[in-house]
Amino acid sequence: MFTLNISIKLHDTDAAGLLFYANQFRLAHDAYEGFMEEIGFGFASIIKDSDFLLPIVHAEADYKAELSVGDRVTVRLTTEKVGDSSFTLAYELLDAEGKPVGSVKTVHVCLDKVTRKKKALSGDLRSALESNS
Amino acid sequence: MFTLNISIKLHDTDAAGLLFYANQFRLAHDAYEGFMEEIGFGFASIIKDSDFLLPIVHAEADYKAELSVGDRVTVRLTTEKVGDSSFTLAYELLDAEGKPVGSVKTVHVCLDKVTRKKKALSGDLRSALESNS
Amino acid sequence: MFTLNISIKLHDTDAAGLLFYANQFRLAHDAYEGFMEEIGFGFASIIKDSDFLLPIVHAEADYKAELSVGDRVTVRLTTEKVGDSSFTLAYELLDAEGKPVGSVKTVHVCLDKVTRKKKALSGDLRSALESNS
Amino acid sequence: MFTLNISIKLHDTDAAGLLFYANQFRLAHDAYEGFMEEIGFGFASIIKDSDFLLPIVHAEADYKAELSVGDRVTVRLTTEKVGDSSFTLAYELLDAEGKPVGSVKTVHVCLDKVTRKKKALSGDLRSALESNS
Repeated sequence: MFTLNISIKLHDTDAAGLLFYANQFRLAHDAYEGFMEEIGFGFASIIKDSDFLLPIVHAEADYKAELSVGDRVTVRLTTEKVGDSSFTLAYELLDAEGKPVGSVKTVHVCLDKVTRKKKALSGDLRSALESNS
Repeated sequence: MFTLNISIKLHDTDAAGLLFYANQFRLAHDAYEGFMEEIGFGFASIIKDSDFLLPIVHAEADYKAELSVGDRVTVRLTTEKVGDSSFTLAYELLDAEGKPVGSVKTVHVCLDKVTRKKKALSGDLRSALESNS
Repeated sequence: MFTLNISIKLHDTDAAGLLFYANQFRLAHDAYEGFMEEIGFGFASIIKDSDFLLPIVHAEADYKAELSVGDRVTVRLTTEKVGDSSFTLAYELLDAEGKPVGSVKTVHVCLDKVTRKKKALSGDLRSALESNS
Repeated sequence: MFTLNISIKLHDTDAAGLLFYANQFRLAHDAYEGFMEEIGFGFASIIKDSDFLLPIVHAEADYKAELSVGDRVTVRLTTEKVGDSSFTLAYELLDAEGKPVGSVKTVHVCLDKVTRKKKALSGDLRSALESNS
Protein backbone atom coordinates (compact mmCIF):
# COMPACT_ATOMS: atom_id res chain seq x y z
CA MET A 1 0.00 0.00 0.00
CA PHE A 2 1.24 3.44 -0.96
CA THR A 3 0.17 6.35 1.25
CA LEU A 4 0.03 10.07 0.52
CA ASN A 5 -0.87 12.69 3.12
CA ILE A 6 -2.37 15.88 1.80
CA SER A 7 -4.52 18.77 2.91
CA ILE A 8 -7.37 20.24 0.92
CA LYS A 9 -6.22 23.50 -0.64
CA LEU A 10 -8.39 26.52 -1.37
CA HIS A 11 -8.13 25.90 -5.13
CA ASP A 12 -9.48 22.36 -4.58
CA THR A 13 -12.74 23.81 -3.32
CA ASP A 14 -15.48 25.75 -5.07
CA ALA A 15 -18.10 28.36 -4.17
CA ALA A 16 -20.33 25.68 -2.63
CA GLY A 17 -17.62 25.53 0.05
CA LEU A 18 -16.45 21.96 -0.57
CA LEU A 19 -14.00 19.92 -2.66
CA PHE A 20 -14.93 20.23 -6.36
CA TYR A 21 -15.66 16.68 -7.52
CA ALA A 22 -13.13 16.55 -10.38
CA ASN A 23 -10.37 17.50 -7.95
CA GLN A 24 -10.76 14.23 -6.05
CA PHE A 25 -9.50 12.56 -9.24
CA ARG A 26 -6.58 15.00 -9.33
CA LEU A 27 -5.66 14.19 -5.71
CA ALA A 28 -5.81 10.47 -6.47
CA HIS A 29 -3.48 11.05 -9.41
CA ASP A 30 -1.01 12.81 -7.13
CA ALA A 31 -0.85 9.58 -5.10
CA TYR A 32 -0.45 7.56 -8.31
CA GLU A 33 2.49 9.74 -9.36
CA GLY A 34 4.14 9.32 -5.97
CA PHE A 35 3.63 5.56 -6.13
CA MET A 36 5.05 5.29 -9.66
CA GLU A 37 8.11 7.28 -8.63
CA GLU A 38 8.62 5.01 -5.63
CA ILE A 39 8.55 1.85 -7.77
CA GLY A 40 10.99 3.33 -10.29
CA PHE A 41 8.52 4.40 -12.96
CA GLY A 42 8.36 8.15 -12.37
CA PHE A 43 6.34 10.12 -14.91
CA ALA A 44 9.33 12.13 -16.11
CA SER A 45 11.06 8.93 -17.27
CA ILE A 46 7.87 7.41 -18.71
CA ILE A 47 7.15 10.52 -20.76
CA LYS A 48 10.71 11.13 -21.91
CA ASP A 49 12.47 7.77 -22.01
CA SER A 50 10.07 4.84 -22.18
CA ASP A 51 8.43 3.19 -25.21
CA PHE A 52 5.01 3.06 -23.54
CA LEU A 53 2.31 5.25 -22.03
CA LEU A 54 -0.31 4.27 -19.43
CA PRO A 55 -3.42 6.30 -20.28
CA ILE A 56 -6.51 6.00 -18.13
CA VAL A 57 -9.46 4.44 -19.97
CA HIS A 58 -11.93 4.39 -17.09
CA ALA A 59 -12.20 6.26 -13.81
CA GLU A 60 -14.80 6.40 -11.09
CA ALA A 61 -15.20 7.96 -7.67
CA ASP A 62 -17.50 7.92 -4.70
CA TYR A 63 -17.90 10.89 -2.38
CA LYS A 64 -18.74 9.88 1.17
CA ALA A 65 -18.25 13.03 3.23
CA GLU A 66 -17.87 16.76 2.79
CA LEU A 67 -14.28 17.91 2.46
CA SER A 68 -13.38 21.56 3.14
CA VAL A 69 -10.28 23.72 2.87
CA GLY A 70 -7.64 22.71 5.40
CA ASP A 71 -8.96 19.19 5.94
CA ARG A 72 -6.22 16.58 6.26
CA VAL A 73 -6.72 13.59 3.98
CA THR A 74 -4.75 10.38 3.63
CA VAL A 75 -4.86 8.65 0.24
CA ARG A 76 -4.20 4.90 0.36
CA LEU A 77 -3.38 3.43 -3.02
CA THR A 78 -3.51 -0.31 -3.69
CA THR A 79 -3.38 -2.36 -6.87
CA GLU A 80 -6.71 -4.04 -7.48
CA LYS A 81 -5.97 -6.03 -10.62
CA VAL A 82 -3.14 -6.54 -13.08
CA GLY A 83 -3.92 -7.88 -16.56
CA ASP A 84 -1.69 -8.54 -19.54
CA SER A 85 -1.73 -4.97 -20.82
CA SER A 86 -3.85 -3.17 -18.24
CA PHE A 87 -4.20 -2.62 -14.51
CA THR A 88 -6.66 -1.20 -12.01
CA LEU A 89 -5.74 0.96 -9.03
CA ALA A 90 -7.94 1.66 -6.00
CA TYR A 91 -7.63 4.73 -3.80
CA GLU A 92 -9.23 5.18 -0.39
CA LEU A 93 -9.42 8.69 1.04
CA LEU A 94 -9.50 8.84 4.84
CA ASP A 95 -9.94 11.87 7.08
CA ALA A 96 -7.77 12.73 10.09
CA GLU A 97 -9.72 10.24 12.24
CA GLY A 98 -9.28 7.44 9.70
CA LYS A 99 -12.89 7.58 8.50
CA PRO A 100 -13.41 6.88 4.76
CA VAL A 101 -14.43 10.11 3.02
CA GLY A 102 -14.12 9.05 -0.60
CA SER A 103 -12.72 6.53 -3.04
CA VAL A 104 -11.40 6.50 -6.58
CA LYS A 105 -10.68 3.75 -9.09
CA THR A 106 -8.60 4.13 -12.26
CA VAL A 107 -8.12 1.62 -15.09
CA HIS A 108 -4.96 2.01 -17.16
CA VAL A 109 -3.89 0.41 -20.43
CA CYS A 110 -0.34 0.10 -21.62
CA LEU A 111 0.07 1.60 -25.09
CA ASP A 112 3.05 1.53 -27.42
CA LYS A 113 4.16 5.15 -27.66
CA VAL A 114 4.65 4.97 -31.43
CA THR A 115 1.89 2.67 -32.71
CA ARG A 116 -0.63 3.69 -29.99
CA LYS A 117 -1.63 -0.02 -29.81
CA LYS A 118 -1.94 -2.14 -26.67
CA LYS A 119 1.30 -3.54 -25.39
CA ALA A 120 2.06 -6.06 -22.63
CA LEU A 121 3.22 -4.59 -19.33
CA SER A 122 6.93 -5.12 -18.76
CA GLY A 123 7.86 -7.74 -16.16
CA ASP A 124 9.35 -5.10 -13.86
CA LEU A 125 6.27 -2.91 -13.90
CA ARG A 126 3.97 -5.91 -13.47
CA SER A 127 5.90 -7.11 -10.42
CA ALA A 128 5.96 -3.68 -8.85
CA LEU A 129 2.22 -3.26 -9.38
CA GLU A 130 1.43 -6.74 -8.05
CA SER A 131 3.44 -6.19 -4.89
CA ASN A 132 1.34 -3.14 -3.94
CA SER A 133 -1.53 -4.94 -2.23
CA MET B 1 -30.68 17.05 -24.69
CA PHE B 2 -28.43 19.93 -23.73
CA THR B 3 -25.40 20.56 -25.93
CA LEU B 4 -22.17 22.42 -25.20
CA ASN B 5 -19.47 23.05 -27.80
CA ILE B 6 -15.98 23.46 -26.47
CA SER B 7 -12.39 23.18 -27.57
CA ILE B 8 -9.64 21.52 -25.58
CA LYS B 9 -7.48 24.23 -24.02
CA LEU B 10 -3.78 24.00 -23.29
CA HIS B 11 -4.44 23.87 -19.53
CA ASP B 12 -6.72 20.85 -20.07
CA THR B 13 -3.75 18.85 -21.34
CA ASP B 14 -0.65 17.55 -19.59
CA ALA B 15 2.94 16.72 -20.49
CA ALA B 16 1.85 13.41 -22.04
CA GLY B 17 0.29 15.64 -24.72
CA LEU B 18 -3.35 14.73 -24.10
CA LEU B 19 -6.37 15.73 -22.02
CA PHE B 20 -5.64 15.10 -18.31
CA TYR B 21 -8.26 12.59 -17.16
CA ALA B 22 -9.70 14.66 -14.30
CA ASN B 23 -10.36 17.52 -16.71
CA GLN B 24 -12.93 15.45 -18.62
CA PHE B 25 -15.01 15.63 -15.43
CA ARG B 26 -14.49 19.38 -15.35
CA LEU B 27 -15.67 19.75 -18.95
CA ALA B 28 -18.74 17.65 -18.21
CA HIS B 29 -19.49 19.91 -15.26
CA ASP B 30 -19.30 22.95 -17.54
CA ALA B 31 -22.12 21.39 -19.57
CA TYR B 32 -24.05 20.64 -16.37
CA GLU B 33 -23.77 24.30 -15.30
CA GLY B 34 -25.00 25.47 -18.70
CA PHE B 35 -27.91 23.05 -18.54
CA MET B 36 -28.90 24.09 -15.03
CA GLU B 37 -28.84 27.75 -16.03
CA GLU B 38 -31.03 26.97 -19.05
CA ILE B 39 -33.66 25.24 -16.91
CA GLY B 40 -33.71 28.08 -14.39
CA PHE B 41 -31.48 26.56 -11.72
CA GLY B 42 -28.22 28.41 -12.30
CA PHE B 43 -25.50 27.75 -9.76
CA ALA B 44 -25.38 31.35 -8.55
CA SER B 45 -29.00 31.11 -7.41
CA ILE B 46 -28.61 27.59 -5.98
CA ILE B 47 -25.60 28.63 -3.91
CA LYS B 48 -26.97 31.97 -2.74
CA ASP B 49 -30.76 31.69 -2.66
CA SER B 50 -31.95 28.08 -2.49
CA ASP B 51 -32.48 25.82 0.52
CA PHE B 52 -30.76 22.86 -1.14
CA LEU B 53 -27.48 21.74 -2.66
CA LEU B 54 -26.93 19.00 -5.25
CA PRO B 55 -23.55 17.44 -4.41
CA ILE B 56 -22.17 14.66 -6.57
CA VAL B 57 -21.93 11.34 -4.72
CA HIS B 58 -20.67 9.22 -7.61
CA ALA B 59 -18.93 9.98 -10.88
CA GLU B 60 -17.43 7.86 -13.62
CA ALA B 61 -15.89 8.35 -17.03
CA ASP B 62 -14.70 6.38 -20.01
CA TYR B 63 -11.96 7.63 -22.31
CA LYS B 64 -12.37 6.39 -25.87
CA ALA B 65 -9.97 8.47 -27.93
CA GLU B 66 -7.00 10.78 -27.47
CA LEU B 67 -7.93 14.44 -27.14
CA SER B 68 -5.32 17.13 -27.82
CA VAL B 69 -5.13 20.91 -27.53
CA GLY B 70 -7.39 22.63 -30.06
CA ASP B 71 -9.68 19.62 -30.60
CA ARG B 72 -13.34 20.57 -30.92
CA VAL B 73 -15.62 18.56 -28.67
CA THR B 74 -19.37 18.52 -28.30
CA VAL B 75 -20.77 17.50 -24.92
CA ARG B 76 -24.31 16.10 -25.05
CA LEU B 77 -26.00 15.99 -21.67
CA THR B 78 -29.10 13.88 -21.00
CA THR B 79 -30.89 12.90 -17.82
CA GLU B 80 -30.56 9.19 -17.23
CA LYS B 81 -32.64 8.76 -14.10
CA VAL B 82 -34.58 10.87 -11.61
CA GLY B 83 -35.30 9.48 -8.15
CA ASP B 84 -37.05 11.03 -5.17
CA SER B 85 -34.00 12.89 -3.88
CA SER B 86 -31.36 12.04 -6.46
CA PHE B 87 -30.71 12.05 -10.20
CA THR B 88 -28.19 10.73 -12.70
CA LEU B 89 -26.84 12.66 -15.67
CA ALA B 90 -25.07 11.17 -18.69
CA TYR B 91 -22.64 13.08 -20.89
CA GLU B 92 -21.40 11.96 -24.30
CA LEU B 93 -18.34 13.67 -25.73
CA LEU B 94 -18.15 13.68 -29.53
CA ASP B 95 -15.35 14.92 -31.77
CA ALA B 96 -15.78 17.24 -34.77
CA GLU B 97 -16.86 14.27 -36.91
CA GLY B 98 -19.46 13.15 -34.37
CA LYS B 99 -17.44 10.15 -33.20
CA PRO B 100 -17.74 9.34 -29.45
CA VAL B 101 -14.47 10.18 -27.71
CA GLY B 102 -15.52 9.87 -24.10
CA SER B 103 -18.40 9.72 -21.65
CA VAL B 104 -19.13 10.80 -18.11
CA LYS B 105 -21.84 9.96 -15.62
CA THR B 106 -22.64 11.92 -12.44
CA VAL B 107 -25.01 10.98 -9.62
CA HIS B 108 -26.37 13.86 -7.54
CA VAL B 109 -28.29 13.91 -4.29
CA CYS B 110 -30.44 16.74 -3.08
CA LEU B 111 -29.40 17.88 0.40
CA ASP B 112 -31.03 20.37 2.71
CA LYS B 113 -28.55 23.23 3.00
CA VAL B 114 -28.98 23.54 6.76
CA THR B 115 -29.46 19.98 8.02
CA ARG B 116 -27.28 18.38 5.32
CA LYS B 117 -29.87 15.58 5.11
CA LYS B 118 -31.50 14.18 1.97
CA LYS B 119 -34.41 16.20 0.70
CA ALA B 120 -36.93 15.51 -2.07
CA LEU B 121 -36.30 17.28 -5.37
CA SER B 122 -38.72 20.15 -5.94
CA GLY B 123 -41.43 19.56 -8.53
CA ASP B 124 -39.98 22.22 -10.84
CA LEU B 125 -36.48 20.77 -10.81
CA ARG B 126 -37.80 17.23 -11.25
CA SER B 127 -39.87 18.25 -14.29
CA ALA B 128 -36.98 20.12 -15.86
CA LEU B 129 -34.63 17.16 -15.33
CA GLU B 130 -37.17 14.65 -16.66
CA SER B 131 -37.77 16.65 -19.81
CA ASN B 132 -34.07 16.49 -20.75
CA SER B 133 -34.05 13.12 -22.47
CA MET C 1 -8.67 43.39 -30.68
CA PHE C 2 -9.62 39.78 -30.05
CA THR C 3 -12.67 39.17 -27.87
CA LEU C 4 -13.70 36.09 -25.89
CA ASN C 5 -16.99 35.79 -24.04
CA ILE C 6 -17.02 33.44 -21.11
CA SER C 7 -18.91 32.79 -17.91
CA ILE C 8 -17.31 32.02 -14.56
CA LYS C 9 -17.64 28.31 -13.90
CA LEU C 10 -18.00 26.67 -10.49
CA HIS C 11 -14.48 25.20 -10.75
CA ASP C 12 -13.11 28.74 -11.31
CA THR C 13 -14.29 29.74 -7.85
CA ASP C 14 -13.14 28.68 -4.39
CA ALA C 15 -14.65 28.35 -0.92
CA ALA C 16 -14.38 32.12 -0.39
CA GLY C 17 -17.13 32.28 -3.02
CA LEU C 18 -15.18 34.14 -5.71
CA LEU C 19 -12.89 33.53 -8.67
CA PHE C 20 -9.63 31.94 -7.46
CA TYR C 21 -6.87 34.39 -8.46
CA ALA C 22 -4.78 31.96 -10.51
CA ASN C 23 -7.81 31.16 -12.63
CA GLN C 24 -7.92 34.71 -14.01
CA PHE C 25 -4.61 33.85 -15.68
CA ARG C 26 -6.15 30.66 -17.05
CA LEU C 27 -9.10 32.58 -18.50
CA ALA C 28 -6.74 35.08 -20.12
CA HIS C 29 -4.84 32.18 -21.66
CA ASP C 30 -8.08 30.83 -23.12
CA ALA C 31 -8.42 34.15 -24.96
CA TYR C 32 -4.77 33.94 -26.06
CA GLU C 33 -5.37 30.46 -27.51
CA GLY C 34 -8.44 31.66 -29.38
CA PHE C 35 -6.51 34.62 -30.74
CA MET C 36 -3.56 32.49 -31.86
CA GLU C 37 -5.89 30.10 -33.62
CA GLU C 38 -7.58 33.01 -35.39
CA ILE C 39 -4.28 34.38 -36.71
CA GLY C 40 -3.19 30.96 -37.96
CA PHE C 41 -0.90 29.99 -35.09
CA GLY C 42 -3.08 27.53 -33.18
CA PHE C 43 -1.38 25.76 -30.28
CA ALA C 44 -1.79 22.31 -31.85
CA SER C 45 0.36 23.37 -34.81
CA ILE C 46 2.88 25.27 -32.66
CA ILE C 47 3.40 22.28 -30.38
CA LYS C 48 3.49 19.63 -33.10
CA ASP C 49 4.78 21.31 -36.27
CA SER C 50 6.67 24.53 -35.56
CA ASP C 51 10.36 25.05 -34.72
CA PHE C 52 9.58 27.48 -31.91
CA LEU C 53 7.74 27.80 -28.61
CA LEU C 54 6.40 30.98 -26.99
CA PRO C 55 6.78 30.47 -23.23
CA ILE C 56 5.59 33.13 -20.82
CA VAL C 57 8.44 34.76 -18.88
CA HIS C 58 6.38 37.29 -16.95
CA ALA C 59 2.72 37.60 -16.05
CA GLU C 60 0.74 39.98 -13.90
CA ALA C 61 -2.86 40.63 -13.04
CA ASP C 62 -5.04 43.14 -11.27
CA TYR C 63 -8.33 42.21 -9.65
CA LYS C 64 -10.82 45.06 -9.65
CA ALA C 65 -14.13 43.48 -8.71
CA GLU C 66 -15.49 40.29 -7.20
CA LEU C 67 -16.39 37.63 -9.77
CA SER C 68 -18.80 34.83 -8.84
CA VAL C 69 -20.09 31.66 -10.48
CA GLY C 70 -22.30 32.44 -13.45
CA ASP C 71 -20.93 35.95 -14.04
CA ARG C 72 -20.53 36.82 -17.72
CA VAL C 73 -17.11 38.19 -18.56
CA THR C 74 -15.69 39.53 -21.81
CA VAL C 75 -11.93 39.23 -22.29
CA ARG C 76 -10.46 41.80 -24.70
CA LEU C 77 -6.99 40.91 -25.90
CA THR C 78 -4.69 43.45 -27.52
CA THR C 79 -1.01 43.40 -28.40
CA GLU C 80 0.88 45.88 -26.27
CA LYS C 81 4.39 45.51 -27.66
CA VAL C 82 6.26 43.42 -30.19
CA GLY C 83 10.04 43.10 -29.91
CA ASP C 84 12.53 41.15 -31.96
CA SER C 85 12.05 37.88 -30.11
CA SER C 86 9.37 38.75 -27.58
CA PHE C 87 5.92 40.28 -27.28
CA THR C 88 3.55 41.54 -24.62
CA LEU C 89 -0.20 40.93 -24.58
CA ALA C 90 -2.77 42.87 -22.54
CA TYR C 91 -6.15 41.49 -21.48
CA GLU C 92 -9.03 43.52 -20.12
CA LEU C 93 -11.84 41.66 -18.36
CA LEU C 94 -15.21 43.41 -18.49
CA ASP C 95 -18.44 42.42 -16.81
CA ALA C 96 -21.85 42.24 -18.50
CA GLU C 97 -22.25 46.04 -18.16
CA GLY C 98 -18.84 46.71 -19.70
CA LYS C 99 -17.22 47.67 -16.40
CA PRO C 100 -13.56 46.62 -16.01
CA VAL C 101 -13.31 43.82 -13.44
CA GLY C 102 -9.73 42.73 -13.97
CA SER C 103 -6.71 42.81 -16.23
CA VAL C 104 -3.84 40.53 -17.15
CA LYS C 105 -0.54 41.05 -18.93
CA THR C 106 1.68 38.29 -20.33
CA VAL C 107 5.19 38.60 -21.76
CA HIS C 108 6.27 35.88 -24.17
CA VAL C 109 9.66 35.03 -25.65
CA CYS C 110 10.19 33.07 -28.81
CA LEU C 111 12.48 30.09 -28.19
CA ASP C 112 14.00 27.67 -30.66
CA LYS C 113 12.38 24.33 -29.87
CA VAL C 114 15.67 22.43 -30.13
CA THR C 115 18.31 24.78 -28.74
CA ARG C 116 15.94 26.49 -26.24
CA LYS C 117 17.63 29.78 -27.18
CA LYS C 118 15.91 33.05 -28.13
CA LYS C 119 14.85 33.23 -31.74
CA ALA C 120 13.44 36.10 -33.82
CA LEU C 121 9.68 36.06 -34.34
CA SER C 122 8.77 35.05 -37.88
CA GLY C 123 7.50 37.84 -40.13
CA ASP C 124 4.04 36.29 -40.32
CA LEU C 125 3.63 36.04 -36.58
CA ARG C 126 5.01 39.54 -36.06
CA SER C 127 2.55 41.03 -38.57
CA ALA C 128 -0.38 39.18 -37.06
CA LEU C 129 0.58 40.32 -33.55
CA GLU C 130 1.13 43.93 -34.64
CA SER C 131 -2.24 44.12 -36.34
CA ASN C 132 -4.06 43.25 -33.10
CA SER C 133 -4.24 46.70 -31.58
CA MET D 1 10.63 32.69 6.06
CA PHE D 2 8.09 29.97 5.42
CA THR D 3 9.19 27.06 3.24
CA LEU D 4 7.13 24.54 1.27
CA ASN D 5 8.63 21.59 -0.60
CA ILE D 6 6.65 20.32 -3.55
CA SER D 7 7.11 18.38 -6.74
CA ILE D 8 5.63 19.32 -10.08
CA LYS D 9 2.66 17.07 -10.77
CA LEU D 10 1.46 15.91 -14.17
CA HIS D 11 -1.64 18.10 -13.91
CA ASP D 12 0.61 21.14 -13.34
CA THR D 13 2.09 20.69 -16.81
CA ASP D 14 0.59 21.11 -20.27
CA ALA D 15 1.11 19.66 -23.74
CA ALA D 16 4.16 21.89 -24.28
CA GLY D 17 5.77 19.64 -21.65
CA LEU D 18 6.28 22.27 -18.95
CA LEU D 19 4.54 23.89 -15.98
CA PHE D 20 1.47 25.82 -17.18
CA TYR D 21 2.09 29.45 -16.19
CA ALA D 22 -1.10 29.93 -14.13
CA ASN D 23 -0.16 26.93 -12.00
CA GLN D 24 2.89 28.72 -10.62
CA PHE D 25 0.41 31.08 -8.95
CA ARG D 26 -1.47 28.07 -7.60
CA LEU D 27 1.72 26.58 -6.13
CA ALA D 28 2.58 29.93 -4.52
CA HIS D 29 -0.89 29.98 -2.98
CA ASP D 30 -0.31 26.51 -1.52
CA ALA D 31 2.67 27.99 0.33
CA TYR D 32 0.57 30.97 1.43
CA GLU D 33 -2.07 28.61 2.87
CA GLY D 34 0.58 26.65 4.74
CA PHE D 35 2.05 29.86 6.11
CA MET D 36 -1.32 31.23 7.23
CA GLU D 37 -2.11 27.97 9.00
CA GLU D 38 1.27 28.09 10.75
CA ILE D 39 0.66 31.62 12.07
CA GLY D 40 -2.81 30.73 13.30
CA PHE D 41 -4.85 32.15 10.44
CA GLY D 42 -5.76 28.99 8.53
CA PHE D 43 -8.18 29.48 5.65
CA ALA D 44 -10.88 27.30 7.20
CA SER D 45 -11.12 29.67 10.16
CA ILE D 46 -10.86 32.83 8.02
CA ILE D 47 -13.66 31.68 5.74
CA LYS D 48 -15.94 30.34 8.46
CA ASP D 49 -15.22 32.31 11.61
CA SER D 50 -13.51 35.64 10.92
CA ASP D 51 -15.01 39.03 10.08
CA PHE D 52 -12.53 39.69 7.26
CA LEU D 53 -11.29 38.31 3.98
CA LEU D 54 -7.89 38.85 2.36
CA PRO D 55 -8.52 38.90 -1.41
CA ILE D 56 -5.62 39.32 -3.81
CA VAL D 57 -5.76 42.59 -5.74
CA HIS D 58 -2.52 42.21 -7.67
CA ALA D 59 -0.32 39.26 -8.58
CA GLU D 60 2.76 38.86 -10.73
CA ALA D 61 5.24 36.15 -11.59
CA ASP D 62 8.52 35.65 -13.36
CA TYR D 63 9.49 32.37 -14.98
CA LYS D 64 13.22 31.78 -14.98
CA ALA D 65 13.65 28.12 -15.93
CA GLU D 66 11.67 25.27 -17.44
CA LEU D 67 9.89 23.11 -14.87
CA SER D 68 8.79 19.57 -15.81
CA VAL D 69 6.80 16.79 -14.18
CA GLY D 70 8.63 15.32 -11.20
CA ASP D 71 10.87 18.34 -10.61
CA ARG D 72 11.39 19.15 -6.93
CA VAL D 73 10.73 22.77 -6.07
CA THR D 74 11.10 24.69 -2.84
CA VAL D 75 8.86 27.71 -2.34
CA ARG D 76 10.25 30.33 0.07
CA LEU D 77 7.65 32.79 1.26
CA THR D 78 8.57 36.09 2.91
CA THR D 79 6.56 39.17 3.77
CA GLU D 80 7.67 42.10 1.64
CA LYS D 81 5.49 44.86 3.03
CA VAL D 82 2.72 45.35 5.57
CA GLY D 83 0.45 48.38 5.29
CA ASP D 84 -2.53 49.46 7.35
CA SER D 85 -5.05 47.31 5.48
CA SER D 86 -2.89 45.50 2.95
CA PHE D 87 0.25 43.41 2.67
CA THR D 88 2.58 42.05 0.00
CA LEU D 89 4.05 38.56 -0.03
CA ALA D 90 7.06 37.42 -2.09
CA TYR D 91 7.69 33.82 -3.15
CA GLU D 92 10.95 32.46 -4.51
CA LEU D 93 10.87 29.09 -6.27
CA LEU D 94 14.15 27.16 -6.14
CA ASP D 95 15.03 23.89 -7.83
CA ALA D 96 16.68 20.90 -6.13
CA GLU D 97 20.09 22.59 -6.48
CA GLY D 98 18.86 25.83 -4.93
CA LYS D 99 18.82 27.72 -8.24
CA PRO D 100 15.98 30.27 -8.61
CA VAL D 101 13.49 29.00 -11.19
CA GLY D 102 10.66 31.46 -10.67
CA SER D 103 9.11 34.04 -8.40
CA VAL D 104 5.66 35.26 -7.48
CA LYS D 105 4.35 38.33 -5.70
CA THR D 106 0.83 38.77 -4.30
CA VAL D 107 -0.79 41.89 -2.87
CA HIS D 108 -3.65 41.35 -0.44
CA VAL D 109 -6.18 43.76 1.03
CA CYS D 110 -8.14 43.18 4.18
CA LEU D 111 -11.88 43.53 3.57
CA ASP D 112 -14.72 43.52 6.03
CA LYS D 113 -16.69 40.38 5.22
CA VAL D 114 -20.04 42.14 5.49
CA THR D 115 -19.46 45.63 4.10
CA ARG D 116 -16.77 44.56 1.60
CA LYS D 117 -14.87 47.73 2.54
CA LYS D 118 -11.20 48.01 3.51
CA LYS D 119 -10.47 47.22 7.12
CA ALA D 120 -7.29 47.54 9.18
CA LEU D 121 -5.32 44.34 9.72
CA SER D 122 -5.68 43.02 13.25
CA GLY D 123 -2.66 43.42 15.50
CA ASP D 124 -2.13 39.66 15.70
CA LEU D 125 -2.12 39.18 11.95
CA ARG D 126 0.10 42.22 11.44
CA SER D 127 2.66 40.92 13.94
CA ALA D 128 2.67 37.47 12.43
CA LEU D 129 3.12 38.88 8.92
CA GLU D 130 5.88 41.27 10.01
CA SER D 131 7.84 38.52 11.73
CA ASN D 132 8.06 36.51 8.48
CA SER D 133 11.07 38.19 6.94
